[in-house]
Amino acid sequence: MNFLEERILKDGVVSAGNVLKVDSFLNHQMDVALLDQIGKEICRRYEGKKITKVLTIETSGIAIAYAVAQQLGVPMVFAKKSKSINLSGDMYVAQVESFLHNDVEHVIVARKFLSEDDNILIVDDIMANGCALQGLISIVDSADATVEGLGIAIEKGFQEGGYRIRNLGYHLESLAIVESMDAETGKITFREQI
Amino acid sequence: MNFLEERILKDGVVSAGNVLKVDSFLNHQMDVALLDQIGKEICRRYEGKKITKVLTIETSGIAIAYAVAQQLGVPMVFAKKSKSINLSGDMYVAQVESFLHNDVEHVIVARKFLSEDDNILIVDDIMANGCALQGLISIVDSADATVEGLGIAIEKGFQEGGYRIRNLGYHLESLAIVESMDAETGKITFREQI
Repeated sequence: MNFLEERILKDGVVSAGNVLKVDSFLNHQMDVALLDQIGKEICRRYEGKKITKVLTIETSGIAIAYAVAQQLGVPMVFAKKSKSINLSGDMYVAQVESFLHNDVEHVIVARKFLSEDDNILIVDDIMANGCALQGLISIVDSADATVEGLGIAIEKGFQEGGYRIRNLGYHLESLAIVESMDAETGKITFREQI
Repeated sequence: MNFLEERILKDGVVSAGNVLKVDSFLNHQMDVALLDQIGKEICRRYEGKKITKVLTIETSGIAIAYAVAQQLGVPMVFAKKSKSINLSGDMYVAQVESFLHNDVEHVIVARKFLSEDDNILIVDDIMANGCALQGLISIVDSADATVEGLGIAIEKGFQEGGYRIRNLGYHLESLAIVESMDAETGKITFREQI
């Protein structure tokens, strides 16, 4: 079991409806030493790859992107989410559907921050159905930049995001993949990773 | 002139309506080395003070809070913004009015992340009328915790936020205070600081 899986077992809380609360260390209160370690581990898994920029989406992905970008010595960009958009030519926009909220959101990045020479590492804190990440991939494609890979802290392995993105041929690394969880017993099982 | 003022002159863009765009290095694309330097400078200004937690508000404050918390070796917490709230007993909520958008927002922090033993450093990237920061101060007060001070990257000195917060007796440090800016000439003048 790695450091993040151990921390999830220690401080994560499983609630009804397949909710995993990690707000005491990852997405409300943030344990900066842990995030630093997550950043280093994501970088280790992409060692030797040329990465020019780290891309994430607001809000809680920002801290992980910061940790990764700091390790790599490259800039980071965070995409903005908006229900409404004022379409102008200077932004890349991807439309994503949220199953959870049953609505449509726009993922937006200013054109000037992505170029065809960029090799992008996309990162985020939690992936469930992967909609936001697919929006980010689509934006990188629009910019004719290269998706070098994706680095996620926690993947909900029982939802379809990881399946979809790996099937599209992308390199996706998740530090902890939750295979199942039980709100009654609080038990969390992780997928074995080599 | 300090490193941040120099960077604002180099890469900041003044637009009509007193808008200062710093999205190429501070709040869309982020220069992590610069943010690291901002974090160190904010910490330097609070050297010797006992700080147990760094508090900010989503979205772009998160990176600066990360940089400061990393220096201090303490956790950070980011407050969430919401138009609607589901009032429950486990959250501190402050209602703030936005002059810019002419509406009301709620600033929310889970109770469990603030205690009366906490000495809080509040940080953010940009302060204009200071509404969000006053919401954060009010939340720290609700928790009977102590506001040790506030650290801001860029203060719009010609708007009333800094004036209000200093008049309330709080220690407020802004690394760059924009005294005036001119959208026609692009000229930016900073307040002299010792």
